[in-house]
Amino acid sequence: MSSRSYRFVTNRGAPMQEVRVAQLDPAVRDYDEGGSGEEVTLRANEAAWRVRRFAPHVLTGVERAVTEVDLLGARLAAPVLVAPTALHGLVHPDGEVATARGAAAAGCGFVLSTRTSVPIEDVAAAAGPWWFQVYAMRDRALTLDLVAAAATSGAAAVVLTGDTPVVAPKRRPTPGVDPAAAHLAGLRARTGRDLTAVDVEQDPSAGTDLIRELGRVAGLPVLVKGVLRADDAARCLDAGAAGVIVSNHGGRQLDRAVATAEALPGVVAAVGGAAPVLVDGGIRTGADVLVALALGADAVLVGRPALRALAAGGADGVARMLRTLREELALAMVLAGVPAVTRPFPDVLHR
Amino acid sequence: MSSRSYRFVTNRGAPMQEVRVAQLDPAVRDYDEGGSGEEVTLRANEAAWRVRRFAPHVLTGVERAVTEVDLLGARLAAPVLVAPTALHGLVHPDGEVATARGAAAAGCGFVLSTRTSVPIEDVAAAAGPWWFQVYAMRDRALTLDLVAAAATSGAAAVVLTGDTPVVAPKRRPTPGVDPAAAHLAGLRARTGRDLTAVDVEQDPSAGTDLIRELGRVAGLPVLVKGVLRADDAARCLDAGAAGVIVSNHGGRQLDRAVATAEALPGVVAAVGGAAPVLVDGGIRTGADVLVALALGADAVLVGRPALRALAAGGADGVARMLRTLREELALAMVLAGVPAVTRPFPDVLHR
Amino acid sequence: MSSRSYRFVTNRGAPMQEVRVAQLDPAVRDYDEGGSGEEVTLRANEAAWRVRRFAPHVLTGVERAVTEVDLLGARLAAPVLVAPTALHGLVHPDGEVATARGAAAAGCGFVLSTRTSVPIEDVAAAAGPWWFQVYAMRDRALTLDLVAAAATSGAAAVVLTGDTPVVAPKRRPTPGVDPAAAHLAGLRARTGRDLTAVDVEQDPSAGTDLIRELGRVAGLPVLVKGVLRADDAARCLDAGAAGVIVSNHGGRQLDRAVATAEALPGVVAAVGGAAPVLVDGGIRTGADVLVALALGADAVLVGRPALRALAAGGADGVARMLRTLREELALAMVLAGVPAVTRPFPDVLHR
Amino acid sequence: MSSRSYRFVTNRGAPMQEVRVAQLDPAVRDYDEGGSGEEVTLRANEAAWRVRRFAPHVLTGVERAVTEVDLLGARLAAPVLVAPTALHGLVHPDGEVATARGAAAAGCGFVLSTRTSVPIEDVAAAAGPWWFQVYAMRDRALTLDLVAAAATSGAAAVVLTGDTPVVAPKRRPTPGVDPAAAHLAGLRARTGRDLTAVDVEQDPSAGTDLIRELGRVAGLPVLVKGVLRADDAARCLDAGAAGVIVSNHGGRQLDRAVATAEALPGVVAAVGGAAPVLVDGGIRTGADVLVALALGADAVLVGRPALRALAAGGADGVARMLRTLREELALAMVLAGVPAVTRPFPDVLHR
Repeated sequence: MSSRSYRFVTNRGAPMQEVRVAQLDPAVRDYDEGGSGEEVTLRANEAAWRVRRFAPHVLTGVERAVTEVDLLGARLAAPVLVAPTALHGLVHPDGEVATARGAAAAGCGFVLSTRTSVPIEDVAAAAGPWWFQVYAMRDRALTLDLVAAAATSGAAAVVLTGDTPVVAPKRRPTPGVDPAAAHLAGLRARTGRDLTAVDVEQDPSAGTDLIRELGRVAGLPVLVKGVLRADDAARCLDAGAAGVIVSNHGGRQLDRAVATAEALPGVVAAVGGAAPVLVDGGIRTGADVLVALALGADAVLVGRPALRALAAGGADGVARMLRTLREELALAMVLAGVPAVTRPFPDVLHR
Repeated sequence: MSSRSYRFVTNRGAPMQEVRVAQLDPAVRDYDEGGSGEEVTLRANEAAWRVRRFAPHVLTGVERAVTEVDLLGARLAAPVLVAPTALHGLVHPDGEVATARGAAAAGCGFVLSTRTSVPIEDVAAAAGPWWFQVYAMRDRALTLDLVAAAATSGAAAVVLTGDTPVVAPKRRPTPGVDPAAAHLAGLRARTGRDLTAVDVEQDPSAGTDLIRELGRVAGLPVLVKGVLRADDAARCLDAGAAGVIVSNHGGRQLDRAVATAEALPGVVAAVGGAAPVLVDGGIRTGADVLVALALGADAVLVGRPALRALAAGGADGVARMLRTLREELALAMVLAGVPAVTRPFPDVLHR
Repeated sequence: MSSRSYRFVTNRGAPMQEVRVAQLDPAVRDYDEGGSGEEVTLRANEAAWRVRRFAPHVLTGVERAVTEVDLLGARLAAPVLVAPTALHGLVHPDGEVATARGAAAAGCGFVLSTRTSVPIEDVAAAAGPWWFQVYAMRDRALTLDLVAAAATSGAAAVVLTGDTPVVAPKRRPTPGVDPAAAHLAGLRARTGRDLTAVDVEQDPSAGTDLIRELGRVAGLPVLVKGVLRADDAARCLDAGAAGVIVSNHGGRQLDRAVATAEALPGVVAAVGGAAPVLVDGGIRTGADVLVALALGADAVLVGRPALRALAAGGADGVARMLRTLREELALAMVLAGVPAVTRPFPDVLHR
Repeated sequence: MSSRSYRFVTNRGAPMQEVRVAQLDPAVRDYDEGGSGEEVTLRANEAAWRVRRFAPHVLTGVERAVTEVDLLGARLAAPVLVAPTALHGLVHPDGEVATARGAAAAGCGFVLSTRTSVPIEDVAAAAGPWWFQVYAMRDRALTLDLVAAAATSGAAAVVLTGDTPVVAPKRRPTPGVDPAAAHLAGLRARTGRDLTAVDVEQDPSAGTDLIRELGRVAGLPVLVKGVLRADDAARCLDAGAAGVIVSNHGGRQLDRAVATAEALPGVVAAVGGAAPVLVDGGIRTGADVLVALALGADAVLVGRPALRALAAGGADGVARMLRTLREELALAMVLAGVPAVTRPFPDVLHR
């Protein structure tokens, strides 16, 4: 990708549409696009979906693929949500409000990051079905307050990020981009308290008991994000989780963590249908979504594609990206003879 | 390949002969050469044949390899047919007439596409053994009329394309090339009816019951093209198919569909000799053909090589390409100690 | 790497810090960086760590990773030692004194090469926990004298290099760099004897009986370096070794020897906890160290990174490189949910 | 390789010595260096040796590796022979006389091609232990006469090429190089008969009965060259062969034939020690030789390296190349702890 352009990644666009974003700061782009360590996992995520091959059916009479799905009580046009990512305000003046509006317009879910550029309440007002992502801050009371506020504002679920006991340093330098400082400033403004950087940094002592605590405060289902192991999935469910999100934080935390497409089947087997299993990391096309669903995911989340679409086209860009993803998924389903996302179809993958 | 040249792909030419086609429209070339999605399957098809290795025999006394074969009642000089592809008139003024003539001259089969540039009857007059490819149009009566006309004109079999409930968008832009419009115009002229685009587009509701319906109307054997799965092969035979063609539409329908060389063995095993199994996709040399036969195919089809040869040399070019392919196959057979294509020789593949 | 620069290889540096060493002789750089044969093993060593993937845990409550470890009686800040390499004086005027000082400052171990640029006693005075590496010279008495001197000077263990019955020629020409001559000159000066090149060259007749002989002379534990096979590990322990170091001499002896990451598990299984198993070769980041420990190594050694750090920054450079490595390891442990290096954690590797 | 240079391929030379041969005709170079088809097998041969990894022993006390071996009654300095290749006169005025002299000087075997540039008797006078390669010509009497002449001149064995029922076309054009014509001219001169091209071309009807016929005429052991299959090895031994040579004709006959390193183990297992198994194809270094021996070969043959050395340095060049190969082998053996080539050492390969 050239230094100042974003493109929608779609199969349908022929050729793929490229939108130049002349005003985008290279440091912001590197902050959003980069990963930790040697960016091994960042690259591996995308590749792991692409190596899978389909064994499509012929002459099935599937006229229209049903992509609609119910997820934790919400009806979605497709099993796709916008993943929680920090500071949408860096790429668009309306920040998360625009992203949430785009997701709602496309009938997809939206997960708001704790590190939002915009107050929770403002986003909630613009959103369709949305969830709130949280991590354990050292100031536990503040953590719980935020979750309670999200619940009050209408969040339908809480997503607890489990893979970030500390924030891993990133590979690429991003001069002038300081998400921790922006986060701290936002929380000071929100609370009127003289919070310190330590108060709001990740609390590595957090364990699975936090799952039930969050659920109690919010009165909402809690999903754990960052699960890459079968035993951890079981631990989280045992501790009260309503679902798990297979994720390696988009290659931004432990570099060389297994690609999510490779971790997914083990987690699906461990959960055994007892709760929703979602997945993110490197999903860029409808074919990627179809692979994820075939491997047993109930839904997927897309992070960087949403940021790119937001940067390129605001709320409309986000909606368009998500609709394209849904159309690509529907097309791939029809071509593969898969009638609906609501029933398992593991055999659509070759071998 | 440079933008305006085609070459015959042969082992024997040393170096491979390159024929410049200065007048070929880049959009036409991209229409013929391109694929859907990210063109993963397009590339995978060729590669999957090339990775296989031979374990040739020594001192067998095989003096001449017998490539002749009977296929559905026709005697072919080699188990090779020209695959159905659309609109040969785009690359040569004589269109499918020239292609059919070239195939006949080389003693190979020809499969005429529904999307022919030239009336069925004109092609039939020029052809040797030929089959007619059809897909289910929304106007079912028209579909059956075309098949009946093909049967009347002397087609020896019907090939029902099963992998195209809808036409997948292609990767490369092809400004000015509109196969659907050309197809519609041709059918309007043929029928004298005011057909709409919807009438002649693919009917995704078509199921395997269409196999027997086509057979009844045509009084001909029906092969299903696009089969990539063992269970689908069995379904098609149960529904009356006289054979199956393992194909992913040359990488033009579901991208990331399994390469045909990888799908072939499972289909062969499922069919178990009960009917012919053909294969296409990425076959470019006689060595590719030998691999396909060793994996259990009864014959192969070549699509893009025929279009390239047609563009470069008309009917003579097509004949020359097919003869070269036959010679390459015969040479590889002699070198491998395989006396004839009519008996299985799976052990010529290493491991 | 450009011809006259070294860089610290770290995950944390973002971007990785590059230090130009304008005065470094290219022949010295090639002597340190190169390998034998076609440098297949040199390259394979690094790659073999990087292909492994982690399956990190979530929500473990691991607040701080314990990297401290006891190794053969010494307390190390991390299970990391500087590997024995020849002639540090080529890259820094203080030679091994600076390296040893840097290792001590970082709390890591140091293994002094027989081919030291500086007298053993001077290095000993500067070092923290240190071991002495020796190979069997044809002058056996001299060999034993050196080991005895090292023991007297405070070495905590002897490392017997077992993979060098003769010195393999290197791939890259290094005009003006003659380690054998430098070594001979140093030993002549030390002993006052008129030693010949043959006296001090490798004695290929050396067998495992030398292990006990060295142990007796030194009164110290003896580890064998260069072990790549399970049966050799058992042979060495049976012959009195106190531990083994899985190594292929950094790709400088038998080219195409198996990468150490691939040899390690078999050796670990053969040793079965009866003695420490260390490993070197291609370890460049804390993630590499974590892989090695997960595969069962008790500690790792780094050679070229220490030389690069010494060239770039002297003792401070070495200390900084080692501290960075320790920090990277600790970070990866926290992110993976591994609380301490002292207990096995094989399941942190995916599959 | 640049267009007019040859280099000795050695591990020991550091850097590898490159000898420019300004007068070498590019068509000759392409004739010698090229292969058939798409040159897949040509490339695969070299790669298949290089991917294997060694598991060397430590502290074995092996002081000097014994590379000497007895092969079919001859004592060789190393288990290495010059493979039969056509028309050495193209690259050196003394042709096969120089090659044979070089091989003798190095203590290695020499296999003279039927397509020799020089009369058999002249080569015999210059050679050490040598064998005569023959293929079945359509003029069978002539075939037998040549073999008888070779036997009379002192050949110690006959090598029957079994993989060439017809000569495969080569990939690269070689204008002005016509080996068949040169061969015909040589045989006309030798016999004084008005032979035709057909008389001396390959006879594809030849079977394994030719093995005993050649043995009877020559009174010599007959080895079959080109064996890539276990069942063929058994067939040849049953038909009287004294040994087999695993070969794919250096990638010049059936392209995509399995690499010899991959075919070797199956042949070795089938022969089970009942006769010598030799191998050629892509062997370029002593490490390659060690892999071949570890996989069970009794000896190896090198073709292109001999032609390159002949072009670069005549008889001395050939001797030097072979000595280097022997030295590389001996070095690798000492480093791996392999004392002699006369006893099996399969476990020196990792896994």
